[in-house]
Amino acid sequence: MKETKNIAIVGAGLVGSLLSIYLAKRGYSVSVYERRLDMRKHNIHGGRSINLALSNRGIRALEKVGLADVLKANAIPMHGRMVHDENGNTNFQPYGKEGEYINSVSRGGLNMVLMTEAEKFGVEFYFEHRCLGIDFKENEITLQEYEAVKRKKFDVIIGSDGAFSAVRGAMQTTDRFEFSQSYIEHGYKELRIPASDTGEFLMEPHALHIWPRESYMLIALPNPDNTFTCTLFLPFEGPVSFSQLNSEETIKNFFEKNFPDAFTKMPTLLEDFRDNATSSLVTIRCYPWVRNKTLLIGDAAHGIVPFYGQGMNAGFEDCRVLDELLDEHQDKWKKVLPVFQEQRKPDADAIAQLALDNFIEMRDKVADEDFLLQKKIEARLHEKYPDRWIPLYTQVTFRDDIRYSEALAAGKKQQRIMDELLSRPGIKTSWKSLNLEEIINKL
Amino acid sequence: MKETKNIAIVGAGLVGSLLSIYLAKRGYSVSVYERRLDMRKHNIHGGRSINLALSNRGIRALEKVGLADVLKANAIPMHGRMVHDENGNTNFQPYGKEGEYINSVSRGGLNMVLMTEAEKFGVEFYFEHRCLGIDFKENEITLQEYEAVKRKKFDVIIGSDGAFSAVRGAMQTTDRFEFSQSYIEHGYKELRIPASDTGEFLMEPHALHIWPRESYMLIALPNPDNTFTCTLFLPFEGPVSFSQLNSEETIKNFFEKNFPDAFTKMPTLLEDFRDNATSSLVTIRCYPWVRNKTLLIGDAAHGIVPFYGQGMNAGFEDCRVLDELLDEHQDKWKKVLPVFQEQRKPDADAIAQLALDNFIEMRDKVADEDFLLQKKIEARLHEKYPDRWIPLYTQVTFRDDIRYSEALAAGKKQQRIMDELLSRPGIKTSWKSLNLEEIINKL
Repeated sequence: MKETKNIAIVGAGLVGSLLSIYLAKRGYSVSVYERRLDMRKHNIHGGRSINLALSNRGIRALEKVGLADVLKANAIPMHGRMVHDENGNTNFQPYGKEGEYINSVSRGGLNMVLMTEAEKFGVEFYFEHRCLGIDFKENEITLQEYEAVKRKKFDVIIGSDGAFSAVRGAMQTTDRFEFSQSYIEHGYKELRIPASDTGEFLMEPHALHIWPRESYMLIALPNPDNTFTCTLFLPFEGPVSFSQLNSEETIKNFFEKNFPDAFTKMPTLLEDFRDNATSSLVTIRCYPWVRNKTLLIGDAAHGIVPFYGQGMNAGFEDCRVLDELLDEHQDKWKKVLPVFQEQRKPDADAIAQLALDNFIEMRDKVADEDFLLQKKIEARLHEKYPDRWIPLYTQVTFRDDIRYSEALAAGKKQQRIMDELLSRPGIKTSWKSLNLEEIINKL
Repeated sequence: MKETKNIAIVGAGLVGSLLSIYLAKRGYSVSVYERRLDMRKHNIHGGRSINLALSNRGIRALEKVGLADVLKANAIPMHGRMVHDENGNTNFQPYGKEGEYINSVSRGGLNMVLMTEAEKFGVEFYFEHRCLGIDFKENEITLQEYEAVKRKKFDVIIGSDGAFSAVRGAMQTTDRFEFSQSYIEHGYKELRIPASDTGEFLMEPHALHIWPRESYMLIALPNPDNTFTCTLFLPFEGPVSFSQLNSEETIKNFFEKNFPDAFTKMPTLLEDFRDNATSSLVTIRCYPWVRNKTLLIGDAAHGIVPFYGQGMNAGFEDCRVLDELLDEHQDKWKKVLPVFQEQRKPDADAIAQLALDNFIEMRDKVADEDFLLQKKIEARLHEKYPDRWIPLYTQVTFRDDIRYSEALAAGKKQQRIMDELLSRPGIKTSWKSLNLEEIINKL
């Protein structure tokens, strides 16, 4: 008989819903409190991205509860980056080797599948329930449903309520809680490329499209209805910024000049631009993640910018790691919670940093000759020494057996070696005759 | 006729009370909301330090409203550091030149004088009023008094409600609000050295006493009743830490061994240690400080650690700077608020850094030979070139005409020069014959 029986999860987003399945499967009685309406019955956008990239860490976490196949069926594989230059010319850069790809999935679709699956395991969802506070000593949540406020006691409380977590808000007023929220200067706005008149994709569907323009960029991910959701990442203020795109004229000119091939495929550009919010991009760092029997998980513990496509994957990996620790320690939460945060915090910090760094790569370096040369040399190294030289993107995206913190450390080492190679005179022509063994031995 | 008439200040601490005087003197109708009881009628400790150091920036801000003389009468001048070694030997290090000193003042005494003075100018204080939230668009505060909750509208709202500001808490949920709270690994506990049997000071009263022990320290400031308030700064965890001082035996041994001369003067050590809380030390950084017509000021905008004795002084300087900007811009708050935050933020960041750095100086370097030699060389440079070489401590503490950010920058430059000098072979004997002109020209 387990001591811990009743678990509350605050937040029915992607991570909270998946976690509820994990915990219900372990035999817990799980209640999920969500402040929004049930998205299966109501049309909710909620200001979050429409689609996102599911990769190996996320898939592994879904596999463990038997859901990977269901979800992969609704996902669109993206095998690489399709880089668009100012003249509309494209250049395809594969993400990895044959069979290594990321998946464009619908946030809402995935979330709904997870909730419905959770209910099959007996998870109870309570919508329009807002967490007003937590009594960490008593393990009680103060919940508001319309005008009614009640306190409910649980054995364990888990906050998976996102970057603006109410559970974390309650922790923030406890003593010695390290916390920072930090925004980048860029915001983003979602736009749309429709299907063709005959219902086909207007661009290559099996790629993540990027229009890198150094200080800003446009990207596009395919949707199952053969449309693309585009996202413009641009500074809020400054000479080239959202603040300057303040008329139909300036918006039109900006797209026509900088993204000519996308522009011709965006008949609703002006309406989309007007109707869709400009959202901000935050990194959340905090510690500890545990107060007594309350735990933060996912974005609530480590909100990151989207440029490595790892936000959801990291949150799903949290669920898998927590489940493994519960196995290892026979569901003794008092033991598991501190071990979880100690083990997972360095990985959360690592992916937060990698995500910030990758913005520069996406918006600037992917169009850079040295970067492309480095990719070619790395591909050769990886081919010859598949277990010793693993490109950073591969480690983060396709190798769920490598911790984020290990990937970050290995990536730094590799970059130092590559910087030296690329600074050699004549490397642009001589790279094919590089002594790979000598390079690999520098690691 | 001014457009802005009604100003709310949240928090009746030192900064809020002084600011209310400034604003009442400008002709505003000022309401101050304080969640605690009136400390003039009730005995409140509130977990904050008993006494603190008032220096030139604070005095200048008090002078401007005619209060410096009143307060200096109740202050105890401290002309330097009295450094105590492990054997109880002492070494006095003056803070500056003749006439340059800091003042030990009672937090409660000063706060009460400021409130009573404010009332003379028509400021209304509302105690036991808690700020629950701010509507930044409408300039409305939601206030709770016992069970009653009401919204009140003002022309300007100012949050001077300290490091755990409720006004800042409301800002934190607005978009793109940069925020961090960061704790050092040390906590502190206040202890007491009583007066002698005949009512005299048991140590030199005109000094700030320090027992520097590298990774921790004890300090003592004099009080008007001829006692000293001691503060032990020690890590929370680790081999030498509060967590280890868990019995009367270990506490007694720790003090007897490390602070032998203080120990003999602390008859209530064990009771004090048991009864007084161990408090944490936080640095608060945030930006912006302004949302529409609501402003953060003092610790609410820039909470710092106490090691430069500048927390209150920085907050008082905020009031003086704000008052000057109101003069300059004819009380046009819409203009003044953004200018205030832009001008003041770099200074707040600078003193936050200086305060963290000075902990290392106080607990470690003041007992270091190189540090003492540097002080001697700097004193000679300052004597010969009083306007060109101003020691960093002097700039921060005695020169209210130099901004914190300027002091930090100048201090870095000076330190680079000093590091080079101190690395010269034989400097310990040859320092008196250094070519001062050559040194000053390096600046």
